[in-house]
Amino acid sequence: MAKPLNVGMIGYGFMGKAHSNAYANVNHFFDLEYRPVLKAVCARSADKAKAFADRWGYEAVETDWRKLVERKDIDLIDICTPNNTHAEIAIAAARAGKMILCEKPLSMNAAEGQQMVEAVEKARVSNMVWYNYRRVPAITLAKQLIDDGKLGKIFHYRAEFLQDWTINPELPQGGTALWRLDVGAAGSGVTGDLLAHCIDTALWLNGDLATVNGMTETFVKERKHNLTGKVEKVGIDDACTFMGRFTNGSLALFESTRYARGHKALYTFEINGEHASIRWDLHDLHRLQYFDHRDQSIVRGWRSIHVTDGDQPYMGNWWVPGLQIGYEATFVHQVADFLRGVQEGKPAMPDFRDALRTQRVCDAVLQSAREGKWMNVPQD
Amino acid sequence: MAKPLNVGMIGYGFMGKAHSNAYANVNHFFDLEYRPVLKAVCARSADKAKAFADRWGYEAVETDWRKLVERKDIDLIDICTPNNTHAEIAIAAARAGKMILCEKPLSMNAAEGQQMVEAVEKARVSNMVWYNYRRVPAITLAKQLIDDGKLGKIFHYRAEFLQDWTINPELPQGGTALWRLDVGAAGSGVTGDLLAHCIDTALWLNGDLATVNGMTETFVKERKHNLTGKVEKVGIDDACTFMGRFTNGSLALFESTRYARGHKALYTFEINGEHASIRWDLHDLHRLQYFDHRDQSIVRGWRSIHVTDGDQPYMGNWWVPGLQIGYEATFVHQVADFLRGVQEGKPAMPDFRDALRTQRVCDAVLQSAREGKWMNVPQD
Amino acid sequence: MAKPLNVGMIGYGFMGKAHSNAYANVNHFFDLEYRPVLKAVCARSADKAKAFADRWGYEAVETDWRKLVERKDIDLIDICTPNNTHAEIAIAAARAGKMILCEKPLSMNAAEGQQMVEAVEKARVSNMVWYNYRRVPAITLAKQLIDDGKLGKIFHYRAEFLQDWTINPELPQGGTALWRLDVGAAGSGVTGDLLAHCIDTALWLNGDLATVNGMTETFVKERKHNLTGKVEKVGIDDACTFMGRFTNGSLALFESTRYARGHKALYTFEINGEHASIRWDLHDLHRLQYFDHRDQSIVRGWRSIHVTDGDQPYMGNWWVPGLQIGYEATFVHQVADFLRGVQEGKPAMPDFRDALRTQRVCDAVLQSAREGKWMNVPQD
Amino acid sequence: MAKPLNVGMIGYGFMGKAHSNAYANVNHFFDLEYRPVLKAVCARSADKAKAFADRWGYEAVETDWRKLVERKDIDLIDICTPNNTHAEIAIAAARAGKMILCEKPLSMNAAEGQQMVEAVEKARVSNMVWYNYRRVPAITLAKQLIDDGKLGKIFHYRAEFLQDWTINPELPQGGTALWRLDVGAAGSGVTGDLLAHCIDTALWLNGDLATVNGMTETFVKERKHNLTGKVEKVGIDDACTFMGRFTNGSLALFESTRYARGHKALYTFEINGEHASIRWDLHDLHRLQYFDHRDQSIVRGWRSIHVTDGDQPYMGNWWVPGLQIGYEATFVHQVADFLRGVQEGKPAMPDFRDALRTQRVCDAVLQSAREGKWMNVPQD
Repeated sequence: MAKPLNVGMIGYGFMGKAHSNAYANVNHFFDLEYRPVLKAVCARSADKAKAFADRWGYEAVETDWRKLVERKDIDLIDICTPNNTHAEIAIAAARAGKMILCEKPLSMNAAEGQQMVEAVEKARVSNMVWYNYRRVPAITLAKQLIDDGKLGKIFHYRAEFLQDWTINPELPQGGTALWRLDVGAAGSGVTGDLLAHCIDTALWLNGDLATVNGMTETFVKERKHNLTGKVEKVGIDDACTFMGRFTNGSLALFESTRYARGHKALYTFEINGEHASIRWDLHDLHRLQYFDHRDQSIVRGWRSIHVTDGDQPYMGNWWVPGLQIGYEATFVHQVADFLRGVQEGKPAMPDFRDALRTQRVCDAVLQSAREGKWMNVPQD
Repeated sequence: MAKPLNVGMIGYGFMGKAHSNAYANVNHFFDLEYRPVLKAVCARSADKAKAFADRWGYEAVETDWRKLVERKDIDLIDICTPNNTHAEIAIAAARAGKMILCEKPLSMNAAEGQQMVEAVEKARVSNMVWYNYRRVPAITLAKQLIDDGKLGKIFHYRAEFLQDWTINPELPQGGTALWRLDVGAAGSGVTGDLLAHCIDTALWLNGDLATVNGMTETFVKERKHNLTGKVEKVGIDDACTFMGRFTNGSLALFESTRYARGHKALYTFEINGEHASIRWDLHDLHRLQYFDHRDQSIVRGWRSIHVTDGDQPYMGNWWVPGLQIGYEATFVHQVADFLRGVQEGKPAMPDFRDALRTQRVCDAVLQSAREGKWMNVPQD
Repeated sequence: MAKPLNVGMIGYGFMGKAHSNAYANVNHFFDLEYRPVLKAVCARSADKAKAFADRWGYEAVETDWRKLVERKDIDLIDICTPNNTHAEIAIAAARAGKMILCEKPLSMNAAEGQQMVEAVEKARVSNMVWYNYRRVPAITLAKQLIDDGKLGKIFHYRAEFLQDWTINPELPQGGTALWRLDVGAAGSGVTGDLLAHCIDTALWLNGDLATVNGMTETFVKERKHNLTGKVEKVGIDDACTFMGRFTNGSLALFESTRYARGHKALYTFEINGEHASIRWDLHDLHRLQYFDHRDQSIVRGWRSIHVTDGDQPYMGNWWVPGLQIGYEATFVHQVADFLRGVQEGKPAMPDFRDALRTQRVCDAVLQSAREGKWMNVPQD
Repeated sequence: MAKPLNVGMIGYGFMGKAHSNAYANVNHFFDLEYRPVLKAVCARSADKAKAFADRWGYEAVETDWRKLVERKDIDLIDICTPNNTHAEIAIAAARAGKMILCEKPLSMNAAEGQQMVEAVEKARVSNMVWYNYRRVPAITLAKQLIDDGKLGKIFHYRAEFLQDWTINPELPQGGTALWRLDVGAAGSGVTGDLLAHCIDTALWLNGDLATVNGMTETFVKERKHNLTGKVEKVGIDDACTFMGRFTNGSLALFESTRYARGHKALYTFEINGEHASIRWDLHDLHRLQYFDHRDQSIVRGWRSIHVTDGDQPYMGNWWVPGLQIGYEATFVHQVADFLRGVQEGKPAMPDFRDALRTQRVCDAVLQSAREGKWMNVPQD
């Protein structure tokens, strides 16, 4: 029987739900030495915390995250709160010697992220950031193909994350479900929310970005603020685009927006290499598009790979070929890899230090957009 | 807090896993008065039962299903064993007054199914058959569109279920994971396994089939039998096709095979109506294809509907728009509907009586294929 | 400079246009010893013949096809008239020693077709039937892949031809553009019109059909007849489906209808072999879908082949990779192959004898549907 | 009978073929007062000119373009030569009072283009540039939808043109078929070749670009030059990307490259408006993707419009619904519109003045890339 690892969850929103589901199910599908125990969930509202605890089976609730962090029976703190609280909580949790799983983006900016890295490294606690898309089986397969050299020299990496949920100018900013529109809580708009995902995947698959040149836009300039009740200037970026160069010589082209009518959550990327190219799309996350120029010329074509076979990443743990898994499985995989890391004494990626690299790119892109010029991305 | 409903599971294979996952997760996503409690799992091998119980959190194991059926603390029997055992177990469970969830197909044939219907109706126990595809959100949406009259008079209904996993003639028949190739255990080949799914969906969406004309083929005539160790004649159908007519005047065309190279589990159907048509495909189960002739002519086209919005069936209980769910969610939905049926005193469909209609079609198709002639499908 | 080959065209409708375009353009794209000269076009209406001749550059017009057939300066008769006139014209043209290109289907039935075959063989005149889809580059490529053995043993061949243009019950039958709805002129409905295309391709790619079992339906039972002005019983089949077995042991499943809302001209076929499968679709005729099980397992997938490269059939004669050709190119290819056959003294396929095989399948399917039983297809 | 309009063609390469085909076929499909007569073709090599003339039916050949331009019996000069010759020929032809159809891009740069505009405007001769993609029926339909207000306020316009034919470093630069790699003949690489198409379409559909910020790359730094026989520095851009802002407030993102493995000629664009979005792709040029947020929410989806119906632009002149046309048809449409302009005394777009706007954007993008900063695009 697997050893318990006691989880203290802070936050109960969309990500609290996704993470709780992962903890609840990971041992059903993966053979691990540890099993997460849902020990306590923390929210400012005791009622909401209680309702969430009942639904997911948390044994207890807290209303003060500091108290949760100090509890002796908690092994791991999961941070699912708005971005502007990550640093304070993470640093306190590190000091308390807890393992930390922090929702992305790591922090409001790279400076803050640097402090978080220092805190967890000083405390020598296991830490990870929830860039869950690395564990989409199709993306993990892409990584494997690249590492196997199937693509050869890389020429282009392009990614986009397109949504359309904030086109309505009547949508307020701020408040429970809408903190992502409040620059005070989120730090940035699509850059930290969507582009950060694209960047994390890109750095993992294609190495560091050397230089970037960004452009941002805020289409709706004022919105009613849900917390103050007043119409206020919108501080976030509604759209953010950047060009750039990777250190391996390939060109970068990235775009994110919440004003692309018809796209709910269209995260796509494409990598063009000397021998082969890869394409992926969140709207059909269980597929990978692959083109190999080394195929016989008359039958060359983009292959639509249905990533559901047992020899493809993670899929041997689920159903049978042809049966797709959902978005939530990516979190299950991430917990599985984290727990395996704990048992083997190896970090699961991206840890805070790795996620800080994404933060630096975001900072450089936003600064570039503000100043209208190319920026170098600070490297490790 | 929801009331416990104690589950006794018989079988621990692929479907045991899918059903257990549904019981374990249904209350995380749906608000219900009842919650399934994983009370006991039964398998002939105590070791295998124990391993399965540990993984899924069953409180106890049994090695004799009759004993499980008689336990006072069990409310519901879930039958996940090979087809040739469904009738005996279900009839015993009904006599013991248990609710019954039976894996599909209901039975080896319609005569056996008729006895099962009589047993559950006499015992007045809640009963349901696991034709899970009805609860794919896209298919439930299709049902809603048809019931709303969006398609108008129906002309054509075609369905196919294509796989390729038995092309290798070295694959043995019989034994644990391969009982679906053993006619003694399965009753038929693709007809009961794959075509039954297509028929269940069709009867639900388009009403009864009146007449059928079938053709079957067994491409690999002999295989080594895993239980006897001998090379024996293969008794199952590797492929089964039929034409037919629905009672509403529309034409039917159905095909299933395990010899369609390149298709892992390609269950598709298409319905052509006077005003609109619908298409669906298990390989991208979160999408529905819809064509509406009433759209303005110059912008008419097949719409690829990403069924992940909160106002589409079941999806308000999961994530946010654009994020797809997996195959396993269909079982969660079915348990949710069953439990809601229990709390409201209404049966969840398909119950045994409803599933018997599919059995009659299968019987007629197989008889038609044997005799080379059209057959009427017996109606209620 | 290429030698002239004088064409006499009978009919000026949709197919007269497609064939004239082929004659007008074939020497622009293909290097040939012969060049078609548009000598005369024949129609009952002198005005319509004249207008057509002006548009396409025919040197003269005729209003009596017998006169055209007898003209000494005509080398080749092209028959683009309704089906019920093919035999009489073709037999007369053969007796006059003309080469004959006949629009498909060859004839009203196999008996009539047999007479046509005898006439051209006795006269030893070059002859061909316009089953143009064989010259879609993607389909010619499919033939090449099959002949190369890439698919291995074939298990399944399925085809469908779906349209939706006759759903409106107010559409009349008979008359110029609508003779395809008049059983007297067309012989049958979708069987001779659409299914014949599917059968021709299938026999070419997969060999003879041994047995068939068909079903037909006429959804709209009465329509106003454009020629008589009266509402009359509809004699054609609106939909025709059949199952069958090829002589190579593979299973056949064919469907055609004009009642599939949303499909304009969706001719598709799929072939499943032991090692590989092929799929094609008229709505994107420049693509071939190909799945090869011998690809490395983790990157197996259906390849979408954009058949526009110079080493793919016919495409070296057109533009550059990535630029697709249209429907009309298939007729250009067929004329090119015919003219090359003339210069090399070899028949271009399908000739009348080859097209008669398709006619026999159509007859057997229709008889099977009438009698409700399996029929053997007469072989050569 | 239509009046003759005598064409003098300069150049005989890929575009000479495409234009000749358009002249040869336009009157077959469109009712026009004028008909192009292929009077003479000009090339430096008399043999090549003769071969081309024989194939396409040009009555005569010339080897000096100045002589062709001066011929009294020529009404229209068609310029299909490399970019560095456009200006000189066009200005001479204008002075000689000829109508001019010039292959794109208009010129080596905007300054040169300005002189060409002045020459044709001074001479008052009909003039047009072969940006043929405006006449893809799907793109013309997109224009119609935008002009009808279906999209509402535009937020994003993105386009890419991806090819992979120059990845091989052994490919030489310069010479007959390869002048596009020679900066002396082409002026730029992908910018003038591919991006110019994207820009022309964009300005037509979405209005002027105000500011741009570009990045270029030359992946293969040296190639053997076919004319000199020496390995020389490559002067063209292999890839060019730019961000920008349109004057209507929407954001631009454009990319072109010849190093995107797997893409032969993937020109795509997408426009995101307040109410609706549009997507198009050259690899399936007969389709338009359309999403309309005003559709009922549960059946919203991207519509794949098969642009082959008679009420869609240009398609009433071709075949029947469902039958696609090819790349070459876009040139036929352009000639048809040009001839209709001549008969109605109205210019067909883009004329030289209109095409100059694209040239200015190209110049600004290239300058921005060189200087690493944002550039304003000069406006009319």
